[in-house]
Amino acid sequence: MQTPILRSSQVNRTSSLIDFGIGQPGFDLLPLDLMRQSADARFAEGDTELLNYGYEQGDGRFRQALADFLSAEYAAPVTPAQLMVTAGASQALSLICTLFTQPGDTVFVEEPSYFLALRILREDFRLNAVPVPSDENGLRIDALEEALTGQRPVFVYTIPTFQNPTGHTLSARRRERLIALAHKHDFWVVADEVYQLLHYSATPPPPLAAHTDSGRVLSIGSFSKILAPGLRLGWIQTAPELVQRFVTCGLVESGGSLNHFTSNLVRVALEQGWQTDYLAGLREIYQRRIGAMDGALRRHLGGMARWQKPDGGYFFWLEMEKAVDTAALLPAAHAAGVGFLPGARCSSVGGLGHYLRLSFAHFGEEEIQEGVERLGQALARA
Amino acid sequence: MQTPILRSSQVNRTSSLIDFGIGQPGFDLLPLDLMRQSADARFAEGDTELLNYGYEQGDGRFRQALADFLSAEYAAPVTPAQLMVTAGASQALSLICTLFTQPGDTVFVEEPSYFLALRILREDFRLNAVPVPSDENGLRIDALEEALTGQRPVFVYTIPTFQNPTGHTLSARRRERLIALAHKHDFWVVADEVYQLLHYSATPPPPLAAHTDSGRVLSIGSFSKILAPGLRLGWIQTAPELVQRFVTCGLVESGGSLNHFTSNLVRVALEQGWQTDYLAGLREIYQRRIGAMDGALRRHLGGMARWQKPDGGYFFWLEMEKAVDTAALLPAAHAAGVGFLPGARCSSVGGLGHYLRLSFAHFGEEEIQEGVERLGQALARA
Repeated sequence: MQTPILRSSQVNRTSSLIDFGIGQPGFDLLPLDLMRQSADARFAEGDTELLNYGYEQGDGRFRQALADFLSAEYAAPVTPAQLMVTAGASQALSLICTLFTQPGDTVFVEEPSYFLALRILREDFRLNAVPVPSDENGLRIDALEEALTGQRPVFVYTIPTFQNPTGHTLSARRRERLIALAHKHDFWVVADEVYQLLHYSATPPPPLAAHTDSGRVLSIGSFSKILAPGLRLGWIQTAPELVQRFVTCGLVESGGSLNHFTSNLVRVALEQGWQTDYLAGLREIYQRRIGAMDGALRRHLGGMARWQKPDGGYFFWLEMEKAVDTAALLPAAHAAGVGFLPGARCSSVGGLGHYLRLSFAHFGEEEIQEGVERLGQALARA
Repeated sequence: MQTPILRSSQVNRTSSLIDFGIGQPGFDLLPLDLMRQSADARFAEGDTELLNYGYEQGDGRFRQALADFLSAEYAAPVTPAQLMVTAGASQALSLICTLFTQPGDTVFVEEPSYFLALRILREDFRLNAVPVPSDENGLRIDALEEALTGQRPVFVYTIPTFQNPTGHTLSARRRERLIALAHKHDFWVVADEVYQLLHYSATPPPPLAAHTDSGRVLSIGSFSKILAPGLRLGWIQTAPELVQRFVTCGLVESGGSLNHFTSNLVRVALEQGWQTDYLAGLREIYQRRIGAMDGALRRHLGGMARWQKPDGGYFFWLEMEKAVDTAALLPAAHAAGVGFLPGARCSSVGGLGHYLRLSFAHFGEEEIQEGVERLGQALARA
């Protein structure tokens, strides 16, 4: 048995628990051969530059390859000058907070939102994160306008596409209105767009990154969910004048590019089309997993919960009867061999106690069916 | 000619300038084969775990290998539980600032100090960085005690061994007194120990990391100067209870280990002894470069400057006549094909205008001799 000190990854994969609370790609999906071939190709060039301090904004050839990839995937032009390479999406959000905020500043967040982004905002950076309600079409712009009558946030943090935890997508019309409000009220839109490319059955509206020219958008992207999370490789897409804020900060001037070596390997995967092919394969796999989870939910939780079958992202968002406290149900679920994320974890106001989030990304179809059956049994007994 | 957009690294290596201002390892020294073999070995294991989200504190086997390496190099025990893996030394310092300070807080820094650390403290985190004088034995403890009568810093930022820019080393006696003062006045010691292992002609006192059990030390280490800067791989060594502050922050809970993939490759280099051998080779090379620079300085700047031949680190620190303004001399030096870092860049009080810093790490012996000759000519003409 391994001692705790030698643990390698966040999640212990020897567990028999089917934990739908894990919002991570399945271990079986991680592209070891792709990364090995990318590394082989880059090392074979005999170029020591990949070991040197990287160009502050990020290696030029990597940004070019990333811009080409994103331009094709977004069906909207992205240029290397708009891209700042980061050490993952969470590090990007942290860097934005470091450079754009002070403790006590107000930012707006969606209710509900990504629970660990809330931790970064509220605990790491001690920001006043004010919730704004959302619905099936994402952030409610009427509620945002009302909130803006009383206060001006430094930024609005939003996950516009296949949101975490709800899976909802901000409508194209609301995207336009959000940008207009950002201009009018002088705030930034920090768009966490890590699920934008994970569309399976319907293509979402263009990302908020497509509004880069507005000068109001900081769009965060990542390879964690389209390639591999251990790479800690992400980016911020924004107007070139805002890129300069990042490029010239002390951290980046001191350390150079925030993830130079790894980005040099991933460049090969982008240039060779391997990233594109891998993503296409992921979409098929996740689409099947959605089908498996939706079917199992209908069979085993049909009378107990309401949900929408998602078109992308990672999550089903289940609403139970109002009297249900999903956090209180978790021990019984664990005893039955299944886990989920209680909705209250995603609320910044202590609400949503009768919701729960299920990720379909981490387990295969058979485990999904087995796990949902266990969940149905645990809930029926509760 | 490459367009600027495709630049790869911080420093343009096609330049004919012999810029001793570059505090980076020489491109010719970067261990491409070592990293290739490490990657090959890790990929050959067929273990996808290196692509998964990493354990928050850092991969257990990597921390074990790093602890073994440091224990041998420091000749003092280091345990995996004391190590928090980071994405380089600068990111470590940034994370410490994020979690331990608020804008406006006072921290103490050595005068002079690493100019980009000063930028991180003062600009990225808007801290009140108060200089404390140093001398040939490092931070002056009498001056620190005097400064402590008026104010309490959150931390003292020090580069105790082969300091940047002076090359000076804090004496063992002063290390003890610094730790005692940290206890007495309740501040942390943030020790930037990235040069600790770069000793060539004399072994320095044990690192401040050896005082980890005091609970007052946060020792920052990095692979940038002992392996390769592009890896963006570093660590914080501190008491396990302080490690928990980092492990449980939002950034780390969200993204997992701050550099999981790369640390998995570097683990091989540690376990196989390749890091140890490579470092031994570096020491011989840098020792010869010191000899070359010292000899050339004697020949070409003998009457113009004073310096101590360093026992380790990266730098010669030259004192000119008081009337000299080294920043003003830089254009003439550049015209002569040589560069340096003006001393004023390293001062947090606008002083040290008659000093300059020369790095011997970036260029080979012949270029060092040529560059110093150019420098002597430029200074003689000034």
